[in-house]
Amino acid sequence: MKRSQLFTKTTKTTPNDEVSNSAKLLIRAGYVYKEMAGVYDFLPLGKRVLDNIMQIIREELNAIGSQELQMTALQNKEVWEATDRWSDDVMDVWFKTKLNAGGEVGLAPTHEEPITRLMKSYISSYKDLPVYAYQFQTKFRNELRAKSGIMRTREFMMKDLYSFSKDRAEHDEFYEKCADTYKKIFNRLGIGNDTFRTFASGGAFSKFSDEFQTLCEVGEDIVYLDREKGIAINDEVYNDETIKDLGLDKSKLEKCKAAEVGNIFTLGYRFSDGLDLTFNDENGERKKVFMGSYGIGPSRVMGVIAEKLSDENGLVWPEEIAPYKYYLVGIGEAAEKICAELTEQAPELILWDDRKGARNGEKFADADLMGIPYRVVISDKTLAESKIELKNRQTGDIELLTLEEFKTKLV
Amino acid sequence: MKRSQLFTKTTKTTPNDEVSNSAKLLIRAGYVYKEMAGVYDFLPLGKRVLDNIMQIIREELNAIGSQELQMTALQNKEVWEATDRWSDDVMDVWFKTKLNAGGEVGLAPTHEEPITRLMKSYISSYKDLPVYAYQFQTKFRNELRAKSGIMRTREFMMKDLYSFSKDRAEHDEFYEKCADTYKKIFNRLGIGNDTFRTFASGGAFSKFSDEFQTLCEVGEDIVYLDREKGIAINDEVYNDETIKDLGLDKSKLEKCKAAEVGNIFTLGYRFSDGLDLTFNDENGERKKVFMGSYGIGPSRVMGVIAEKLSDENGLVWPEEIAPYKYYLVGIGEAAEKICAELTEQAPELILWDDRKGARNGEKFADADLMGIPYRVVISDKTLAESKIELKNRQTGDIELLTLEEFKTKLV
Repeated sequence: MKRSQLFTKTTKTTPNDEVSNSAKLLIRAGYVYKEMAGVYDFLPLGKRVLDNIMQIIREELNAIGSQELQMTALQNKEVWEATDRWSDDVMDVWFKTKLNAGGEVGLAPTHEEPITRLMKSYISSYKDLPVYAYQFQTKFRNELRAKSGIMRTREFMMKDLYSFSKDRAEHDEFYEKCADTYKKIFNRLGIGNDTFRTFASGGAFSKFSDEFQTLCEVGEDIVYLDREKGIAINDEVYNDETIKDLGLDKSKLEKCKAAEVGNIFTLGYRFSDGLDLTFNDENGERKKVFMGSYGIGPSRVMGVIAEKLSDENGLVWPEEIAPYKYYLVGIGEAAEKICAELTEQAPELILWDDRKGARNGEKFADADLMGIPYRVVISDKTLAESKIELKNRQTGDIELLTLEEFKTKLV
Repeated sequence: MKRSQLFTKTTKTTPNDEVSNSAKLLIRAGYVYKEMAGVYDFLPLGKRVLDNIMQIIREELNAIGSQELQMTALQNKEVWEATDRWSDDVMDVWFKTKLNAGGEVGLAPTHEEPITRLMKSYISSYKDLPVYAYQFQTKFRNELRAKSGIMRTREFMMKDLYSFSKDRAEHDEFYEKCADTYKKIFNRLGIGNDTFRTFASGGAFSKFSDEFQTLCEVGEDIVYLDREKGIAINDEVYNDETIKDLGLDKSKLEKCKAAEVGNIFTLGYRFSDGLDLTFNDENGERKKVFMGSYGIGPSRVMGVIAEKLSDENGLVWPEEIAPYKYYLVGIGEAAEKICAELTEQAPELILWDDRKGARNGEKFADADLMGIPYRVVISDKTLAESKIELKNRQTGDIELLTLEEFKTKLV
């Protein structure tokens, strides 16, 4: 991609009401645009990062036998009344609106109810189970406050997976498999080392739920971390009983600030009960389906990564989710020609700063601000020595390569 | 993909209130699920078709230099007041809702206003123009009636592209390029032969707008078609003056029912005026940006294709958008083993009906209902003669291939 073709620009200014550091950087680098408090557009660079995050999640969920679907934002009142979650007193994040044809509808903040009802059309026998279905879907939550940039918004991208199992044992097996898959996902997203499975409050069917918490100074949560064992306890259930339950040693627990990047819940019969989702078992007996839910917010994760991995010069994207891998700057006529050829060869990997009016210093600063993993400088001078300079955005390390060596990275 | 892994089932029943033939077939074949009137979920098979349609559109729009972004559903009242389109009296399809934090917001039925405001951050000089930006985005329209299945819904997927040009001439050039690209897109979608550029009512900046109308018995529009020249006139502007303007011969025009699958509009200064989107030209003069908009509704297109290409046995998908290309049925133990190997080799191309309890007749009927382009029967009997039977869903033609010949189709 040529920089001159990108309609966004970098800027030094951010909206007056923006307090989140990651949001400021994402706006300055041209990744997102603020429509209003808690509502952000994803510009071409931001869309590419979001898509990369979603693709990693999709690949890993498909690998454990999940199927992708896409449900709607508009929600039928009756479906939510069946489980007593329509009232604003119970769910205070509802956006509701009216049909011109008459009647009230809601904007889905989550999808347990509609997917439970949907499965009534497809689950009737033990032979139909288990089912693992997920979606990437825009959720709406009428948050009172929205000051964390894209980490907590009123409209956001959510991956929500729901499991439907014939009994507790089948559920538990998938629950653990999904927890392992979440670790793989956060590793690929580049935050695996600082993301910990965290025990949080459960519900009627399970003492604990599991959160995945990423250590982060601006996180909204407090966790107590056993770094050696790689598990943590959320502040809300941090007490002697929990510590004992988990076989941890209080003196070894570090108190840390963290941001939740994923969660998994044992729902049990909470929704199959309210919406009457049942199946005939091997003996012809009618039984309730045992459910679980598994969430990751790709746009929130993007915000956490932007917050956590950035530095004073700008964003720093892990390689697998960066919008482009190489930021090319050519100095001199022969160098520019080579940049053009390389960009044509690998338009999905390279962002070439081909702007005529911009000084090299500006180009270097933009490469840093945008957080592209490698800044690649090709100059007529270094070409004479057959060398190309690769600078690692995260470490600052500089490597010199021949043109042929660099080309092998583009295939 | 193994059929046994798919959570959806085919069915003979459809919701009582469903009158659209395509919606009935899509529900029966497990492609969509009806949440309420005019609101449909896309199930795994339906999601694959929708994704394939979107990918074709994306590839063709990227090829003419457009950039993909993603804007939000939630809309700021002030932005729409600037162009006098906030009032329900002007736009009667608004869904509106309230923020818990105070204030009213709308759910975008289209995005001219927000994208015009957004571009104020990125367009300031003639050097920044032209810009072509598009998105695939869920739109909301508070339709009074919703009886056409996924052809006209209250929540739907829309591809909307917006062009920003320095003057009329630059605009006109892209407008025609985009019209050509639309023809390419509809060709790839399998409805090119029956889709015609259609002159419809314009606006302040253009006598006509262009619609792309697909001949279809349940279409909501009437067009007058010159089949030889491949252009049509929408009923709303069908008069002697238009016929003369376009150099057509009234006696050669066929009156046809058609469904709109795309449209392009010259917006001129309508929105850049209201929202003050300007640029400095080569002489330092401040000028207004000249705009256009270009829509295709992928979910609507899917409905039109389902309506138009289906027959008494079910859906018929064009190859490039079908969820899978081959529907495999194995008869006998050796044949089933080969089916399993082939499916593992090409899981994205093959849907193998591995269900144990289902009769062959049921499997054949499902292959037809689901509209998979080729039904492939492998039986121990035909294997003895080294032959595999391929049946074309659209033509009914049968071809006999060796296993090796079939395998070459899977790479």
